[in-house]
Amino acid sequence: MRLSRYFLPVLKETPSEAQIASHRLMLRAGMIKQQSAGIYSWLPLGYRVLKRIEEIVHEEQQKAGHIPLLMPTLQSADLWRESGRYDAYGPEMLRMRDRHDRDMLFGPTNEEMITDIFRSHVSSYRDLPMTLYHIQWKFRDEVRPRFGVMRGREFLMKDGYNFDLTYDDAMHAYNRHLVSYLRTYERMGLQAIPMRAESGPIGGDDTHEFLVLAETGESEVFYDSEITDLKFGDRAIDYDDRAQCQAVLEEFTSRYARTDDTHKEAVFEERVPEERRRHARGIEVGQIFYFGTKYSEPMGATVVDPEGNRVPVHMGSHGIGVSRLLGAIIEANHDDKGIIWPEGVTPFHVGIVNLKTGDEAADLACEQIYNAVTEAGLAPLYDDTDDRAGAKFATMDLIGLPWRITVGPRGLKNGVVELTSRRTGESEELPPEQAVTRLAQIYAGKL
Amino acid sequence: MRLSRYFLPVLKETPSEAQIASHRLMLRAGMIKQQSAGIYSWLPLGYRVLKRIEEIVHEEQQKAGHIPLLMPTLQSADLWRESGRYDAYGPEMLRMRDRHDRDMLFGPTNEEMITDIFRSHVSSYRDLPMTLYHIQWKFRDEVRPRFGVMRGREFLMKDGYNFDLTYDDAMHAYNRHLVSYLRTYERMGLQAIPMRAESGPIGGDDTHEFLVLAETGESEVFYDSEITDLKFGDRAIDYDDRAQCQAVLEEFTSRYARTDDTHKEAVFEERVPEERRRHARGIEVGQIFYFGTKYSEPMGATVVDPEGNRVPVHMGSHGIGVSRLLGAIIEANHDDKGIIWPEGVTPFHVGIVNLKTGDEAADLACEQIYNAVTEAGLAPLYDDTDDRAGAKFATMDLIGLPWRITVGPRGLKNGVVELTSRRTGESEELPPEQAVTRLAQIYAGKL
Repeated sequence: MRLSRYFLPVLKETPSEAQIASHRLMLRAGMIKQQSAGIYSWLPLGYRVLKRIEEIVHEEQQKAGHIPLLMPTLQSADLWRESGRYDAYGPEMLRMRDRHDRDMLFGPTNEEMITDIFRSHVSSYRDLPMTLYHIQWKFRDEVRPRFGVMRGREFLMKDGYNFDLTYDDAMHAYNRHLVSYLRTYERMGLQAIPMRAESGPIGGDDTHEFLVLAETGESEVFYDSEITDLKFGDRAIDYDDRAQCQAVLEEFTSRYARTDDTHKEAVFEERVPEERRRHARGIEVGQIFYFGTKYSEPMGATVVDPEGNRVPVHMGSHGIGVSRLLGAIIEANHDDKGIIWPEGVTPFHVGIVNLKTGDEAADLACEQIYNAVTEAGLAPLYDDTDDRAGAKFATMDLIGLPWRITVGPRGLKNGVVELTSRRTGESEELPPEQAVTRLAQIYAGKL
Repeated sequence: MRLSRYFLPVLKETPSEAQIASHRLMLRAGMIKQQSAGIYSWLPLGYRVLKRIEEIVHEEQQKAGHIPLLMPTLQSADLWRESGRYDAYGPEMLRMRDRHDRDMLFGPTNEEMITDIFRSHVSSYRDLPMTLYHIQWKFRDEVRPRFGVMRGREFLMKDGYNFDLTYDDAMHAYNRHLVSYLRTYERMGLQAIPMRAESGPIGGDDTHEFLVLAETGESEVFYDSEITDLKFGDRAIDYDDRAQCQAVLEEFTSRYARTDDTHKEAVFEERVPEERRRHARGIEVGQIFYFGTKYSEPMGATVVDPEGNRVPVHMGSHGIGVSRLLGAIIEANHDDKGIIWPEGVTPFHVGIVNLKTGDEAADLACEQIYNAVTEAGLAPLYDDTDDRAGAKFATMDLIGLPWRITVGPRGLKNGVVELTSRRTGESEELPPEQAVTRLAQIYAGKL
């Protein structure tokens, strides 16, 4: 993308309404625009990151054998009356009437609808196990939406639902989700710690929240410091192997890690030596639940089991806050100049800065690098405007592309350009072709 | 994908509520499920096609230099009061109040919001031309939603908006859209004819609708039969070349082609020799508009022009009915056995039918073909169930994958499998490797 043809409305001033870094930086980097309280447009740069995050979530869910579909944003109130949640949900549910006076709502979650889909089409245990998921816009009418996309009203969520014959099968689905979530967050450059949680309005007994440590997090967290050494890494996983998935769950959840909702100081002190006890703040980026037959029973989602009995299925639901993740990633990855995108989610892989637009050699070299980067399967953002160099650097630092190639007449005389890491600030002079090769190596396995 | 692990709830019976082929077939093939009148869930197979159509639309828009972003589904009523459309829009607009009693609506279109984004961030002619688009769910509260996704209430639309300094610039944007739409529809295996149209509630002087001829279409159309010989094909196009884009517009719109809204029998008879006059029905799959300063003036979307004057921008809006396209494609591509997907949009590229699941040689050959197809970058759907052969064929025919590889013990003894075209019904016996090579050739350039 050439900046002269892009729409990147960066702001010089820090917007006064933004209280936390990610909100401020998303506004300043021209990623979002507030349309109403807690409702945002995703401007081109923000939209690219959002899509990238969606892509990673899809890929990891499908590796785990989960099947994508798409449910609508609007739901009929009748479905929610069946489960008893229509009256129980409270003022966070956005309700409306259509022109024929039917009660509708903007879905805050989809347990009822997916259960309806299941009961309409599945009737035998032979069709199990099954996990269906979608990534769709939700609405929760928060009293006080704040922190930008971190606590918006209209937000994008991945929500998945497992249907299983037995408790054990459902717990395997639970474990599969835990593993896939660990992988998902790590690909985004995040460490998200599974913590024991309470279930809230979804219901459920077994549940873990995934929290990213950040000073601006809304949740208070208490954990054993050993946990932050755990990495899923690139180990192989066979999602059909129950023991393997269970082992990952145990590895990542056996140490003490709880939010203030479930924290018990006495247990903490008993189980964790003082020097490893940590008290911090965290951002919730996902949650997994097992809730058994809470919806399948009242809604009649049953299957015929091998003995010929009709039994309600065991279910769970599992969510990732897709739009909120942008905020969490930025909270964990920024400095006073701006965002620092992890390579896995960056909107463009490299920024190309032409120090002297109009200089024949510089323009030509930039074009060649632009084409070579593109041919290497990477997306460059080329600042081909005639802004001064300082302004170009400031924009690149603000929008946080992990790598920058700086091209100027002086360097070109010596046959080199500069490759700079946004994270370390370190630069290296290289011939243009080598800079592109280096980039391709950096991104190998991260696309 | 292995069918035994997929969720493909095909129906044996023809649902009684479905009046037209596409609706019937989408229900029978397990592509959609109605959740409320005109509101559908996209089951896994339908979702795959929907995503594929989105992808094609994105690719062609971006080739034309148009920039993707994403606006929210919910909008504030205040924006629509500024343009004067809040009261004018009528009962098709779904209105609601949030918990703070603010008037909101589910966006039926986005002229106001995009104009708001533009005026907030752009103030110089130097930033023009600019075309922004998104693909987002819309809601129009039709009195009588029908024909499945063809006339749903919650529907997916690509809507793009151009911002230009002059009328001429805006007409070039108009032409770019026309060209990109021709390419988009052709990639989906559709012939969509641009026809002169009336503008309706969007407003505007210049406007064309794109119609796919189909007996079940809602619109009456009148056209010169020469039009159906026109193909955009794989000719090169430079979207910056005004003359080239204008020439395409002239080529595709100079012949008589109108819907009943704009049809004038006297003009038709005068301009088209009788033997070329056609009267048929069509499905509207897109529309392009130029509407000048209709929104920029009341909403203050102005730029400073080269002479230093502040002038309202010239705008247009351009839509493709993404979800409705599935219906249109099926209306134009089916037979009495089911759907026949064009290669460009098929949910899976090939179906693999194992005639004797459990037979060692057949199972092994299927696995090998499955892996080879996947490695060739294609998506197979492998029927690995123990249904009888007839039922497997019927399902494959119903869901309409363009190619099928049939694997059975008898053929394998002779070292061959069968490659069958869904469209022609013709089969060919080939060694398994050659069948995969043939498939790769068929799909080259269509992915």
